[in-house]
Amino acid sequence: MAPPMHPALEPLSFLLGTWSGTGHGAYPTIEPFDYLETATFGHAGKPFLAYAQRTTAPDGAPMHVETGYWRPVRPGWVELVVAHPTGVAELAEGSLQGQRLELRTTSVSLTPTAKEVTVLERDLEVVGDVLRYELRMAAVGEPLAFHLAAELHRQPAEG
Amino acid sequence: MAPPMHPALEPLSFLLGTWSGTGHGAYPTIEPFDYLETATFGHAGKPFLAYAQRTTAPDGAPMHVETGYWRPVRPGWVELVVAHPTGVAELAEGSLQGQRLELRTTSVSLTPTAKEVTVLERDLEVVGDVLRYELRMAAVGEPLAFHLAAELHRQPAEG
Repeated sequence: MAPPMHPALEPLSFLLGTWSGTGHGAYPTIEPFDYLETATFGHAGKPFLAYAQRTTAPDGAPMHVETGYWRPVRPGWVELVVAHPTGVAELAEGSLQGQRLELRTTSVSLTPTAKEVTVLERDLEVVGDVLRYELRMAAVGEPLAFHLAAELHRQPAEG
Repeated sequence: MAPPMHPALEPLSFLLGTWSGTGHGAYPTIEPFDYLETATFGHAGKPFLAYAQRTTAPDGAPMHVETGYWRPVRPGWVELVVAHPTGVAELAEGSLQGQRLELRTTSVSLTPTAKEVTVLERDLEVVGDVLRYELRMAAVGEPLAFHLAAELHRQPAEG
């Protein structure tokens, strides 16, 4: 049986559950692309959200995944720890106002073979049962630029 | 339906599946403790393993979780990216010989409120259906010291 939610998670509880929808990606070094995404936010009774997402091409071919934790460290402020399978470890922090988050890189670290990423900016907002986010990125020598935007819809809880 | 395994994952395929068992923890700054652990290694057709684990106290109270990716980047060599909900992002690399891994920190980065961790050393070996690991850690001003050891057993595949 799931443990009760930690009270410190209340400000982020609007994220709990599974979200699915579509997104669009672009970057100066690649062709623009569309994708399908499913993201889940869960908890285990502790003061953080467990996060995982996966994207696929419209034909179902796997694209990106990432996984990590969202930490509400004080009122209106959230820290993020995300592992990317590309060899990138992302740390970010930023403001939480209502159901809107603006998270900015505090540290991006890379394994020896990872592609260079230096900055990630994540804006995320939930309105009703719709989650929209935009991600901007500085990577592979390019300045900060638009990379991803998606609109996800809250999925019914499982039986 | 699950996509076929990426051929680059073959050297790490012995990890695929779910493992459960018991462990023992200690550190100079804390009381020794026992724990239950479940770890899963999966794939989605890409050249990395998706990893997640959770530990509980013997009475079932949630303890640690972590999640990330294992990347076989060349023969006999693996990179690791792990997100910890404590605000720690861990990057490591090391040798794979047969079914034994010896992974050493290349970078530990911390969110502003995270407890200081500077080095993690992970030794992991699978013999038959038993996975054993030991984790040593340098943290909170202490030198590298034993922290965790566990013995996990391969669980029957679902469905």
